[in-house]
Amino acid sequence: MRYENLFGKTLKESPKEEISINAQYLIRGGFVDKLMSGVYTQLPLGWKVLEKIHGVIREEMDGVGGQELFMPALHPRSLWEETGRWEALKEIMYIIKDASGKEIALGTTHEEIIADLARRRIYSYKDLPFALYQIQTKFRNEPRAKSGLLRGREFIMKDLYSFHSCVQDLDRYYEKVQTAYLKIFNRVGLEALMVEASGGTFTKNYSHEFQVLSESGEDKTIYCPGCRFAQNVEITNLKEGDPCPSCRDFLKVSKSIEVGNIFKFGSKYADQMGVFFIDIHGQRKPVLLASYGIGTTRLMGTVVEIHHDEKGIIWPPSIAPYQAHLVTLSVKPDVVKEAEKIYRHLAKAGVEVLLDARDESAGVKLADADLIGVPVRLAVSDRTMAKGKIELKKRHESEISYYTLDEVTKFLKNRL
Amino acid sequence: MRYENLFGKTLKESPKEEISINAQYLIRGGFVDKLMSGVYTQLPLGWKVLEKIHGVIREEMDGVGGQELFMPALHPRSLWEETGRWEALKEIMYIIKDASGKEIALGTTHEEIIADLARRRIYSYKDLPFALYQIQTKFRNEPRAKSGLLRGREFIMKDLYSFHSCVQDLDRYYEKVQTAYLKIFNRVGLEALMVEASGGTFTKNYSHEFQVLSESGEDKTIYCPGCRFAQNVEITNLKEGDPCPSCRDFLKVSKSIEVGNIFKFGSKYADQMGVFFIDIHGQRKPVLLASYGIGTTRLMGTVVEIHHDEKGIIWPPSIAPYQAHLVTLSVKPDVVKEAEKIYRHLAKAGVEVLLDARDESAGVKLADADLIGVPVRLAVSDRTMAKGKIELKKRHESEISYYTLDEVTKFLKNRL
Repeated sequence: MRYENLFGKTLKESPKEEISINAQYLIRGGFVDKLMSGVYTQLPLGWKVLEKIHGVIREEMDGVGGQELFMPALHPRSLWEETGRWEALKEIMYIIKDASGKEIALGTTHEEIIADLARRRIYSYKDLPFALYQIQTKFRNEPRAKSGLLRGREFIMKDLYSFHSCVQDLDRYYEKVQTAYLKIFNRVGLEALMVEASGGTFTKNYSHEFQVLSESGEDKTIYCPGCRFAQNVEITNLKEGDPCPSCRDFLKVSKSIEVGNIFKFGSKYADQMGVFFIDIHGQRKPVLLASYGIGTTRLMGTVVEIHHDEKGIIWPPSIAPYQAHLVTLSVKPDVVKEAEKIYRHLAKAGVEVLLDARDESAGVKLADADLIGVPVRLAVSDRTMAKGKIELKKRHESEISYYTLDEVTKFLKNRL
Repeated sequence: MRYENLFGKTLKESPKEEISINAQYLIRGGFVDKLMSGVYTQLPLGWKVLEKIHGVIREEMDGVGGQELFMPALHPRSLWEETGRWEALKEIMYIIKDASGKEIALGTTHEEIIADLARRRIYSYKDLPFALYQIQTKFRNEPRAKSGLLRGREFIMKDLYSFHSCVQDLDRYYEKVQTAYLKIFNRVGLEALMVEASGGTFTKNYSHEFQVLSESGEDKTIYCPGCRFAQNVEITNLKEGDPCPSCRDFLKVSKSIEVGNIFKFGSKYADQMGVFFIDIHGQRKPVLLASYGIGTTRLMGTVVEIHHDEKGIIWPPSIAPYQAHLVTLSVKPDVVKEAEKIYRHLAKAGVEVLLDARDESAGVKLADADLIGVPVRLAVSDRTMAKGKIELKKRHESEISYYTLDEVTKFLKNRL
């Protein structure tokens, strides 16, 4: 992509009410546009990042046998009443009336919808187990959305639901998803702690959160630097400085960002909504359910909170909008021509390159490259041409090196 | 995929209030599930089809230089008031109040949102032209949704918007998209007529619809069987049997399904919302806009209306959920083993196969295969094994042939 053709150029400033780092950099970098509080458009650059995040998640969900589907955002009140969650969640649900006067909620989550689907489609033990997931827009009536993409009124979520005939199978699958979740966070460049947590309005049963340590989070996690022990401060009696119950190191507390949560509901939905199966002996048994969520727009915001410096974003290569950002350091025609040659060569080799050959100063273009945060910056100038090389700088390092086009191509292809 | 593991098996019956062919077959085939009137879940099989449709559309949109983005479903009332469409469309828009009492509409289309985005991002002629598109969920308050996926209260749409500095550029691009649209419909197995139409509430300017002739449509198109002349009956004085103004053949009228519509707004949005640019002479000029829509869930329903017989759906290969449906005609272990061998061989060759080796009668499995409508059915039995061949039947033909595994693999790979 030529930067001059890209819709969504960098901005000098973000709206002044945006106090979070993620919103400031994502808006200034041309990744997102703010429509209203807690509601953002994903511009082409942001959508590219988000689709890469979705790609990683799809691979890992398919890897645990998840089948992708797509459920509606409009939910009938009747299903939410069956579990009592209409009353419990109506403050945070957007509610509309349809032409016939019936109340419809905009989905904040989909347990009721999928449990209804399941009870109409499960007959016997032969229909179990299965796992379904979607990547879909959710809505939440937030009075004060002020954390950028970390807490939206409209946001994108991956939600997985698994259905089982016995506790052993549920437990085994729940652990498999725990591993897949840690892999997802790792692949998008985040180190997440799996934290024991309470279930909130979701469940009185067993649940875990995945927390990324950061000052910008809304949560507090007590954790052990020495081992993987971690608990939500709200459910623990442990305090900062206490010895870790697992390895005796001293515990620390950090404000943290919740990037995922998983709930083992057991037979809760079976009991409340009548989700049953006939077992091998002809007995009617409850279907066991667990659900697993990752807010993907929040994940994108979290990556920015963790990976940035004073100049802008530093995307992990796995989810960067482009692998290389190629800049001309002069506007001389032969420099531009050389950059275009390199651009075509890399594109042909399957490398995603953003070419900035605008009629702007080198300073402007380099500052934009730092703000946008593509992991590898390439530059062409009279000086690099005289050497027969290309300038290469990694976004997270200060060192500049010079390589031939073949070396650069090889280096970038190896990172794919 | 093994059919026994697929979530969303075939059903004997669809809900009795579903009178449209597309909803009946898509529900019975396990492609969609009805949550409420006009609101459907895309089950794994349906989502596969829809994602293939989206893939075709993305290729063609990228081909005309479209950049993908993703806009919100929640729209502030203020933007819709700027064009007077709050009043014009509020009957069909779902409206919610947020925590502060402000009214928010669920988007039925996105012209106001993208015009607002454009006016904040366009400065000079250098920023033009550009084209942006999204594939996103839309909402519409339909009192009577009875045409299955042809008219939903919640549906998925691809909407493209193009912005231009002069009429010539707008006209040229509008024609390019017309060609891309005909290509899209053609690639998903539909013959669409481009029909002159009025703009409805959208515009008093120039617009076209893409109509597929079908008795199940809500529209009427007067068309010429001899040439490509076609008009919406509502804007013409021509009657059935009149001579075609273009080729003098006799005109026909058919109830038809609108699968796409395109609108040349010109300076309408620039005038109403203040979308301007500075031209090369330093003059302030209106930005010209056109928009182009395809309802993708409706497109899926239309394909079913056109491509089916009394046994079920007949998917065009380009958007079929699988390329081959492999059935065991007996439950004998060696037949099942042979089918599994073929399944693995084809999967390795990159062919998407649905394997049905259930412990069911051949009749049940063949009827399910016909209902689901995968374009090529493969079958294994004692008889085919004795021949060293595989039975192959195309869904739209009655003839059965026998081929070796290598021949079958080659045949399927050539269709990719």
